[in-house]
Formats: sequence, C-alpha cells, structure tokens
Amino acid sequence: MTPAADPQGLTRVPVALAERSYDILIGSGLVRGAGATLAERFPGRAVAIVTDAHVGEIHGPALEASLSGAGIRHHRITVAPGEATKRFAVLEEVVDQILAHRLERGDIVLALGGGVVGDLAGFAAAIVRRGMGFVQMPTSLLAQVDSSVGGKTGINSRHGKNLIGAFYQPGLVLADTDVLDTLSTREFRAGYAEVAKYGLIDDPGFFAWLETNWRGVFQGGRDRVHAIATSCRAKAAVVARDETETGDRALLNLGHTFGHALEAATAYDGARLVHGEGVAIGMCQAFRFSAKLGLCAPMDAVRMANHLKAVGLPTELSEIPGGVGDVDRLMAAIGQDKKVARGKLTFILARGIGESFIARDVDPAAVREFLAEELARD
Amino acid sequence: MTPAADPQGLTRVPVALAERSYDILIGSGLVRGAGATLAERFPGRAVAIVTDAHVGEIHGPALEASLSGAGIRHHRITVAPGEATKRFAVLEEVVDQILAHRLERGDIVLALGGGVVGDLAGFAAAIVRRGMGFVQMPTSLLAQVDSSVGGKTGINSRHGKNLIGAFYQPGLVLADTDVLDTLSTREFRAGYAEVAKYGLIDDPGFFAWLETNWRGVFQGGRDRVHAIATSCRAKAAVVARDETETGDRALLNLGHTFGHALEAATAYDGARLVHGEGVAIGMCQAFRFSAKLGLCAPMDAVRMANHLKAVGLPTELSEIPGGVGDVDRLMAAIGQDKKVARGKLTFILARGIGESFIARDVDPAAVREFLAEELARD
Ligand SMILES: NC(=O)c1ccc[n+]([C@@H]2O[C@H](COP(=O)([O-])OP(=O)(O)OC[C@H]3O[C@@H](n4cnc5c(N)ncnc54)[C@H](O)[C@@H]3O)[C@@H](O)[C@H]2O)c1
Ligand SMILES: NC(=O)c1ccc[n+]([C@@H]2O[C@H](COP(=O)([O-])OP(=O)(O)OC[C@H]3O[C@@H](n4cnc5c(N)ncnc54)[C@H](O)[C@@H]3O)[C@@H](O)[C@H]2O)c1
Repeated sequence: MTPAADPQGLTRVPVALAERSYDILIGSGLVRGAGATLAERFPGRAVAIVTDAHVGEIHGPALEASLSGAGIRHHRITVAPGEATKRFAVLEEVVDQILAHRLERGDIVLALGGGVVGDLAGFAAAIVRRGMGFVQMPTSLLAQVDSSVGGKTGINSRHGKNLIGAFYQPGLVLADTDVLDTLSTREFRAGYAEVAKYGLIDDPGFFAWLETNWRGVFQGGRDRVHAIATSCRAKAAVVARDETETGDRALLNLGHTFGHALEAATAYDGARLVHGEGVAIGMCQAFRFSAKLGLCAPMDAVRMANHLKAVGLPTELSEIPGGVGDVDRLMAAIGQDKKVARGKLTFILARGIGESFIARDVDPAAVREFLAEELARD
Repeated sequence: MTPAADPQGLTRVPVALAERSYDILIGSGLVRGAGATLAERFPGRAVAIVTDAHVGEIHGPALEASLSGAGIRHHRITVAPGEATKRFAVLEEVVDQILAHRLERGDIVLALGGGVVGDLAGFAAAIVRRGMGFVQMPTSLLAQVDSSVGGKTGINSRHGKNLIGAFYQPGLVLADTDVLDTLSTREFRAGYAEVAKYGLIDDPGFFAWLETNWRGVFQGGRDRVHAIATSCRAKAAVVARDETETGDRALLNLGHTFGHALEAATAYDGARLVHGEGVAIGMCQAFRFSAKLGLCAPMDAVRMANHLKAVGLPTELSEIPGGVGDVDRLMAAIGQDKKVARGKLTFILARGIGESFIARDVDPAAVREFLAEELARD
C-alpha cells in the first residue's frame, strides 16, 4: 500500500471511473509546475481560473506565472470567500465570465481554492456548453482530502445545502501540499476531521497511525502527503464503487447527519462552527449513539473523541458558542437533511473504530432520547 | 421498418443508451393515460409538472386528472411561454419550487410543453439533487420529433442560445399526437421543417413519402404518427451513436448554422421568425450552397425547397419580415454559432437529398460570396 511516486517525487492516486478516470497528484510544488503539467496533459487548452479573493491573492500570481510560462491563455474569475458564494447568482456570474472569455468546450475551468470554489467551479464546468474541461487545484485540507475527489459539484438552496448540482468528474486534481501552509489552523483542523473520518470508517490502522503521527500532518512534509494520499485513496475507492451515491458512498457521511444538523442549527455561521468542526462533533455523536445502542464498545467512542480533542477539534455540543437550541430544533434539522430517505432516518453508525456501516432504519425516538442526553452533557 | 406497436396501439421507439436507455411512446390518448403509465413504470413517485401558461391551461387539467386518478401526488409549476423563459432566473425559480414541494431524488420532473419547457425542465431535473427522475411530454411537433429526444437540456446565455445545460436523458417520453391539434399552424409547420430534415439527412425514401403524404401529417391520424415515429427513430439512432455530440450527431444540425444566424439576425423575435422557419430557410441554403460548390445537383436544391414551400414554410431570406441585414452581419452571427470549432467553419452540406455530410473546413470567403448571392435573390 505504498503510494505510487512519479519522477518529481509526487504521489499519484488514480481514480478509476472507466472513461472518466483521472489522476490526483499530491505533493510539493504543484502550483509552480501547473503550467508544464497542463501543457503536457491538455495541450492547446485555454484556462479559466476560478478562485476566491483570499486564495487568489495569495496563490493566484504563482499559478498565473506558471501558466503564462507554458504559453497557456488564462483568465482569472474571482468570487467572494465563504459558503454564501455557493448560490445561483454567483454561479450565473461565473458562467457568464467563462463564456465572455470565449472559452470553448475543450478548454479548462480550473478551481483554485477550497471546497466552496471547487463545488461552484465544478458545477460551472459541468453546465457551460454542457460540459467543459475541469481541473481541481484544492487549496484547503478539506478540499484536498474530500471535496475535490469524487465529482460532486454544486450550490446551496434555501431548502438545504448542496441540493443543486451535478456529478462531474475533473480531468485532473493537483493537490499542492505546500499551499496548506497559508491556511488558518482552524481550517486545517476542520479538514483534519475528514482525514480522521477515513480511519474511522474502515481503516483502523490509519486511525492508529494518525494518533501517533498527527503532528507531522499539521507540520507538513512526508506525513502530510501520506495522510492526504491515504484519504484520497480511501475516497476514490468508495467513489469507484458507487459514483452517484446509490449505495456504499453513504459511508462517507459518517458524522455528517449530526454535523449538518449542527451547521443548520448555527445558521451556517462559520464564526461559530465550520463544516469540519460539525463533522468532528457529529462523528463523536455517531460513536456515542452507537455505544448507547449497544453496537460499539463505549471505549471506542472515548478513544476517537480523545484523538480529535488532542488535535484541537470540538467533540461536544457544549463547545459550540451560542448553543444549538433544543431537541426539537435538532430533530427538525436532521429531518431536513437530504440523506433522509422516504421518512426513515439513515445514519452511519459504527461497531468500532474502522467498522462503520449504513443503518437505514434508525428509530427517530431513539435519536431524540440520545440528543436529549447529549444536550445534558456539560 | 414498421414501428413496434404495443397493445394500446401506441408506437414505441426505444432509445438505446446502455443504462440510460428509455422508450418514446407515440400515439393518441397518452395524456389521458399518463397516470396509469407512470404508476406502472415509476411506482410511488411524486410528480412536478413543469409547463408554460399556454399549454398548462389547455392540457394541464387532463394530465392532472389522470395523475390524481392513479393516486400520484403532483404539483404544477408554470412558466411564461416563449424563448425568454430559458434563462437563469426562471431556472432558479423552477428548481426552488421543485424543492419547496419536497420532491426527492427518485421523484419525477415532468415537462409538459414545447421545446422551451422541455429544455428548461430537463435541465432542472438534471441539477436538483444532482439528478431526479425526468419524463418528457412534448406538446409541440418540434418537441416531439426533436427536442424531447436525445437528452440535450439547457438555457440560453447572453452569449448565445443553449450555451448552458446538461446532457440528461429522460426515463420516458410520451408524445401524445392528439395534443398537436391545439398547436397553431405556424408552430406545426415550424416543427415540420425538422421532420423533413430527417429525410434530407439520410433517408431519401422518407423525404419522398413526405412529398406525397404531408397533408396527412398535418391532419393527424396514422400518417402523423408515422412521420413522428420515423423522425424519433432517426434521431435516436444518431444519438445512440454519439450521445454527447463529439462526432456524427452534428448531422442533426443540417440547416441550423444558417438558421441560427437568421434567428440571431432577427433578434430571436418569434413574430418575425420562429426556429423551425429559420431551419427551413437554412436547409434550403445548405442545399443551394452545396449546389454552388458543385457538391450537389441544383435540381435537388430546387426539389427540397419546393416541398417546404408547398407546406407553407419560408425558403428564402426575402420572406423574413424586416430583413436580416447585410453579409457582414450574417457572417458575424455565423462566427458566434457554437458549432464553429477553433476558427474553422463547420457546415452540414449535402451531395443530394438524403446524402448530407459534415464539412469541417469550409472557406469563410466562399460563405461570404454565397450569402451575397442569397441576399440578392428576390
Ligand atoms: N463536493 C464534495 O464532495 C464536498 C465534500 C465536502 C465538502 N464540500 C463542500 O466544501 C465546502 C467547504 O470547503 P472548505 O472547508 O475548503 O471551505 P472554503 O472553500 O470556504 O475554504 C475555507 C476558507 O479557507 C480559505 N482558504 C482556502 N485555501 C486556503 C489557503 N491555501 N490559504 C489560505 N486560505 C485558504 C478560503 O478562502 C476560505 O476562507 C462546503 O461548501 C462543503 O459543502 C464538498
Ligand atoms: N434539446 C434539444 O435537443 C432541442 C432541439 C431543438 C430545439 N430545441 C429548443 O426547443 C425550443 C423550441 O421549441 P418549440 O418550438 O416547441 O417552442 P415552444 O416551447 O416555445 O413552443 C412554441 C409555442 O407553442 C405553444 N404550444 C406548445 N405546445 C402546444 C400545444 N399542444 N397547443 C397549443 N400551444 C402549444 C407554446 O406555448 C409556445 O407558445 C427552442 O428553445 C430550442 O432551442 C431543443
């Protein structure tokens, strides 16, 4: 299971999706080398860089210099940072600018940014001329290990997050591990919750490795590349089995049903709770709920929470500033989550660390009781 | 080549696209029978009917009664009639209403209307929850023989028509040939241009049949069903060979490069020129241009124009009220057409009736000269 390394010392994770297969390249210097990489893989294509104002300011110039150096025509399209950018009006603006720059069907939309930019730009790439070229350059840890892999793209609706979008696979993902050095610690930690998730789903060895080596992941270098590559490989394997989420892929939602409810209950206010923090608490809840149902040893729930706590992630409802309301409010938020199928509650539960499974018939009354206990914890 | 008939006397045209295969059912009484058909094919699914104010008023009640009779939950979403409806703001509104009615991923968006409604509703179905169920009930002749078949969905941009969208196949197409009786003669004729197109592309026998039997097609009954089924079969065959238009499918654009330029030159004003009329003139131009280039016998160009004239379609630029400007204006409109690949002009030309082909390297100077002659005809 050592990752394939290419001549430049990059780790390559292939995503096997028949004629939509593509590579994820992970490592140092990928922004600087982007021009050469794209010129080789997609000769003659123009590029629309979609980025947010924050990331564009820090990493845009290096990328543009690299593209110019390789003789690639490029244009920068800048959106505001933040979740609110994932909406129709901004999508329309991005689409309009791509067309205004006269990009053709074979040209490339390149997402330079976190999950917000990747989801939005990917959706734009999917719908302009019914599908253009698409390259992901994820710049947040969450985007590198999660949102850039698997082809889910989209925007939010007032009825819920990510309710509008397309399955649209990129032609290439370039995950430059150096760019994560400019990410805030809080955002890095939030992405780390998703890294830990892959261990919790089905890779207890990886979870144990993280318990020992997490400092190296935060610091950069080989451990970071290893953690990102392992995460991408895990997600790629699930996606290859179930591209459009009709089955297995739901495992990736470990911690997300509770997590989304917490995001909704905090009105998606990133100052109070960012997505990865919601996932961290949500995963702890999935394990505590599993323990309560007698599915999993209580010690496993304690152990996984202790690791998340060690890296500085929240693990309890009480850590959310301003609170999340009462049981009714949380239940309503859970009921609105899109993973509720035809009235029954679906949760990802666990029999232990690395032994998660899809539970499709969870009794709402048991969830209520569990949430009441959670709210009563200090 | 006699069409497959089912017990209810309907003609079934299968569209073979592997796991995205579906049926087109053609014949009388399909609106009245929709409830039973959907209940059988898609049990337990709720339906969002997307329609325009005009079609909804005439045919909505019968469809709703049929759905209610079959115990299907349904909601009507009404948009304004006309091409201007194919825009972002209306798409957003339709998407929002589908979600407001709490339709799930397996539920059905049903397009009841012409090509405008089909393109818009199909795009909405493609992007809500990253892909819902989708059923087409085309009510214009153009929609029955062209836009409802093949999975192209989308909206317009200020940079051009249909530049934003998705390839999204329906699960079923119900083409009720009775509903065409309420279509205006002008719209029926416009759709007929596309029917004739299939003969002109590669089916000289069908073209000859139309020359003899076109009155029956306009009148209704068996000839109409035959013409629609033959058209659907022709389009389905091309689509099955080339779902995402990377090759062959371009043949379907016979008459459309000139036709789109005429629509642009008349500012998409349907009072002056509707799409099918542009296609009629455009096909005549494709044949006259082919004759001028020595590719096709001049008699074939005369013969096909005579047939279109007989059914009441325009065949000459001079028939367009208000004119279309000069050569420069038409050339500019052609240059903006999305079928222009990397600077070279692509046209569908013909060696004779039923012998069309894709010409990818047409000399712009020859087009200019031809257009000057066309503008000089009385
Ligand atoms: N498509 C999927 O499968 C999928 C999976 C998980 C999450 N998501 C989506 O991803 C989004 C969250 O992604 P995110 O956490 O990356 O959020 P984000 O894109 O908002 O990025 C977080 C913040 O970090 C900044 N940032 C990003 N990279 C930086 C860098 N290298 N240096 C400095 N600042 C940087 C951004 O400007 C932003 O302010 C959500 O919208 C979520 O729905 C999608
Ligand atoms: N997706 C494709 O492959 C494809 C192919 C060709 C055309 N198109 C698109 O189709 C559109 C044109 O379609 P159209 O010609 O059907 O236009 P349309 O949908 O605007 O319908 C024309 C008019 O006829 C009315 N109408 C429709 N059915 C009726 C009925 N049974 N009785 C009374 N009135 C009726 C409508 O209300 C409208 O006013 C264009 O937007 C074009 O881009 C798409």
